[in-house]
Amino acid sequence: MSSDSCSSPPALAWIRSRVSTSRFEPNVEFSDDRIAELIAYACEAPSAYNLQNWRFIAVRSPAAKQKLCELAYGQRQVLDAAVTIIVIGTLNGHEHIRANIEPMVGAGLLSEQELQSWVDDTQRDYEADPRKQRDEAIRSASLAAMTLMAAAQGLGLDSGPMGGFDAQAVQAEFGLGPAEIPVMLVAIGRAAADNWPRKPRRPVPDLLSIV
Amino acid sequence: MSSDSCSSPPALAWIRSRVSTSRFEPNVEFSDDRIAELIAYACEAPSAYNLQNWRFIAVRSPAAKQKLCELAYGQRQVLDAAVTIIVIGTLNGHEHIRANIEPMVGAGLLSEQELQSWVDDTQRDYEADPRKQRDEAIRSASLAAMTLMAAAQGLGLDSGPMGGFDAQAVQAEFGLGPAEIPVMLVAIGRAAADNWPRKPRRPVPDLLSIV
Repeated sequence: MSSDSCSSPPALAWIRSRVSTSRFEPNVEFSDDRIAELIAYACEAPSAYNLQNWRFIAVRSPAAKQKLCELAYGQRQVLDAAVTIIVIGTLNGHEHIRANIEPMVGAGLLSEQELQSWVDDTQRDYEADPRKQRDEAIRSASLAAMTLMAAAQGLGLDSGPMGGFDAQAVQAEFGLGPAEIPVMLVAIGRAAADNWPRKPRRPVPDLLSIV
Repeated sequence: MSSDSCSSPPALAWIRSRVSTSRFEPNVEFSDDRIAELIAYACEAPSAYNLQNWRFIAVRSPAAKQKLCELAYGQRQVLDAAVTIIVIGTLNGHEHIRANIEPMVGAGLLSEQELQSWVDDTQRDYEADPRKQRDEAIRSASLAAMTLMAAAQGLGLDSGPMGGFDAQAVQAEFGLGPAEIPVMLVAIGRAAADNWPRKPRRPVPDLLSIV
């Protein structure tokens, strides 16, 4: 952690100390519980209408890593990281919205009638609009992926996002359904010594207008 | 902050204490510096090839808030929050990649030849593929939006993401270019007393497979 990030509030230090890691120590192993803990954090990300239109495949076994590595154009980190998470966005979250929000009725936060109009609004908004379904799948899965990387950082681990993989082949080889898109891979483990440093960022004044 | 999140490491507490806020205290004002600080954190998000294919419009003045509120179907938080950030993804990040990574040559991290193949790879990957450009714009902007919400939380502020707005009208009224997509709105300020609690989450075992 740089001296700069140490002077930030604790909930901010991870943002500047995170590095997209591509070289991992091999032979680091994660238990089921550790993986579930990471995914529980990822699922705390927000999603439109509380769709939670995401799913996660944790690639941990040598055979599954080998398969995913080939579909990710041989990127070595898939083999070396303790686990690589296939972060999946789903196109049909609107079909399952009722189950996501029904607990709010039990908790007295929502009436049956409000529940029904939440369900109706969600379905109306997505069901006839494939582009919106896809955009939302990518948006939600990306929010979850960023939260996953934050959680890894907070647990003292290292992570590296990957966009370079054969999405169709991953879909086929890892048994994704027709309404599921692999949005990103996130390798998690412990960084080896010879990683790239953080990459430079464009200056804020070039990217921000205040109106 | 719940007792649960207090027992988490500091860099994780924000994940469980964050609530998507829809009711804000009016009359909270943010300086230019505060807004720039938030955006600087957002820009620390990762992006494919270090594209940084994002831009941000901070809607702070009463007139601009009024205009955005109308385009967001009257959602009141746009008026009450100190600022609402229009998080924009760009379709043509690959055309600007050289400038983003050139500082790495100066720093001795990359040779001229490596720089050139980075530029070539990036351009080859996106230039003829509009769907990939759009997916990447949404992905990068969402990673930045999540980091922005984390930064707000870490600075003791509250935030609320919004997907419900007229994207075409926002594009026209706020002067976005043809290669710019408004991906999400993020309202930031101080929560009023009468917000919704955190929404329920699906159980992890329903969402995770380990292979």
